[in-house]
Amino acid sequence: MSDLFFERVAFIGIGHIGSSLVRVMLRDKLAGTITACANRAETLETVKRLKLADAVTTDPAAAVKDADLVVLATPLSAYGVVAKAIAPALKPGAIVTDVGSVKSLVLREVKPLLPVSVHLVPGHPVAGTENSGPESGFPEVFRGRWCILTPVPGGDAAALDKVTRLWQAAEMQVVTMDAEHHDMVLAITSHLPHLIAYTIVGTATDLEETLKSEVIKFSASGFRDFTRIAASSPEMWRDICLANRVALLSELRQYADELYVLIQALEQNDAAKLDEVFTEARKVRANWTPQ
Amino acid sequence: MSDLFFERVAFIGIGHIGSSLVRVMLRDKLAGTITACANRAETLETVKRLKLADAVTTDPAAAVKDADLVVLATPLSAYGVVAKAIAPALKPGAIVTDVGSVKSLVLREVKPLLPVSVHLVPGHPVAGTENSGPESGFPEVFRGRWCILTPVPGGDAAALDKVTRLWQAAEMQVVTMDAEHHDMVLAITSHLPHLIAYTIVGTATDLEETLKSEVIKFSASGFRDFTRIAASSPEMWRDICLANRVALLSELRQYADELYVLIQALEQNDAAKLDEVFTEARKVRANWTPQ
Repeated sequence: MSDLFFERVAFIGIGHIGSSLVRVMLRDKLAGTITACANRAETLETVKRLKLADAVTTDPAAAVKDADLVVLATPLSAYGVVAKAIAPALKPGAIVTDVGSVKSLVLREVKPLLPVSVHLVPGHPVAGTENSGPESGFPEVFRGRWCILTPVPGGDAAALDKVTRLWQAAEMQVVTMDAEHHDMVLAITSHLPHLIAYTIVGTATDLEETLKSEVIKFSASGFRDFTRIAASSPEMWRDICLANRVALLSELRQYADELYVLIQALEQNDAAKLDEVFTEARKVRANWTPQ
Repeated sequence: MSDLFFERVAFIGIGHIGSSLVRVMLRDKLAGTITACANRAETLETVKRLKLADAVTTDPAAAVKDADLVVLATPLSAYGVVAKAIAPALKPGAIVTDVGSVKSLVLREVKPLLPVSVHLVPGHPVAGTENSGPESGFPEVFRGRWCILTPVPGGDAAALDKVTRLWQAAEMQVVTMDAEHHDMVLAITSHLPHLIAYTIVGTATDLEETLKSEVIKFSASGFRDFTRIAASSPEMWRDICLANRVALLSELRQYADELYVLIQALEQNDAAKLDEVFTEARKVRANWTPQ
């Protein structure tokens, strides 16, 4: 038997990603007991029906009592409130980790509230589908994807090691980087593409009805993928955008400038400029060999 | 044996799509002889090496002499020049079709130049990969995809039927619509997504080197798909954008407005506005059942 085992585990928030990690822990018998905490009674009913936890509660402080591992898996806007609620109830030596898409937020809103006797290991499994809720999770969602941990300076090495092995059990490739760097990389690889998907789908909503019905029918993979991305949880993406707004605004403004260059080139029938922009973008692909 | 057979076929332009259709015709024995015309000696060398044609030439007029079927498969910017060159050499009763992504252009730049004795059937197989050139074609590229024909009013029914069956032989689902409508639908389903892909990849080119190398590594499917799209032929997309610039500019301006709304919401930390935009976009997906 592996020495990767947590006697008592608490999940604060148990949606798509939280419930997928629960399923990994159940599959691999990595937890003695699991307590799930959520705001909505409906969510907790689903958790009970699917037998994802031994106990359920709407009280974060009650959930984390005696827990060896606490996983924050709520929308980002709840982090501050949750941290305040659980801080007095956390067991000394407990590991607190999270699955959120913006890591500087954890340093800003969670870390200052936690007792020094607790080991914080911020994490981001870069995985998931456009679906939401505990019924949408599945353990294989993490397979082969990256998990980025952003350990706090001077943090506990054993806690980092345990969280690393937890995500490795979920078949993820675990890497570490600092929180600010993570947020810049994700702004361009994930947050900006999501905003763009929402924007282009929003553009299509203004079409006449007759045209609209044909847009999906004749869409190649491009547009159809956008609508899939735009089906993701609005609440989650609102929180991600606001939590990472500085990095994201910087990328968005750059992007809007590039877009304006293209609009202007089209307005002026400027074939040479379009050639230049398209050729430059093609080089990017050629120079970056995807792994 | 099927009655779908063309004694003499001429391809003017033989890149990714043209050579894929040649491969279908060779596979299904739909042509007596095939003549390929291209500007570049290198392309014609490749065509000869791959045995894609019985004869090759750089002269469009020579290529179409005695042809029963002429397929225009050049970049769109060559259409006017090609039409002018082939018009006097076309056999009465010949079918002229094309594979271009903008159909109003065919009505503007090709139709007025052709003799009335010739049957024009503009077409657009909505298929292809990001690759270019005759070596990149394969007959299955069309399988299960849509082919949109935009027949000219009062055009020859038998010619339309033959071109329809040709694309059906390539395993495409063939539909007809008018050229203007085609161009509006494709502006949003294909041309706008391509422009956006070029723009977002262009944004990434301005990142610092250390960050750039990580962008592909940690990109989820979203950004990586953008770089794939942006690897498409710059010349082809320049021509498509210019040929469909009116419809595309209208969509682009709408899109830029939507983007500005999001930028403003982020600048003002406006959670309610982000919620509204994201929730609206999600509805689009829910209302449109993809086929």
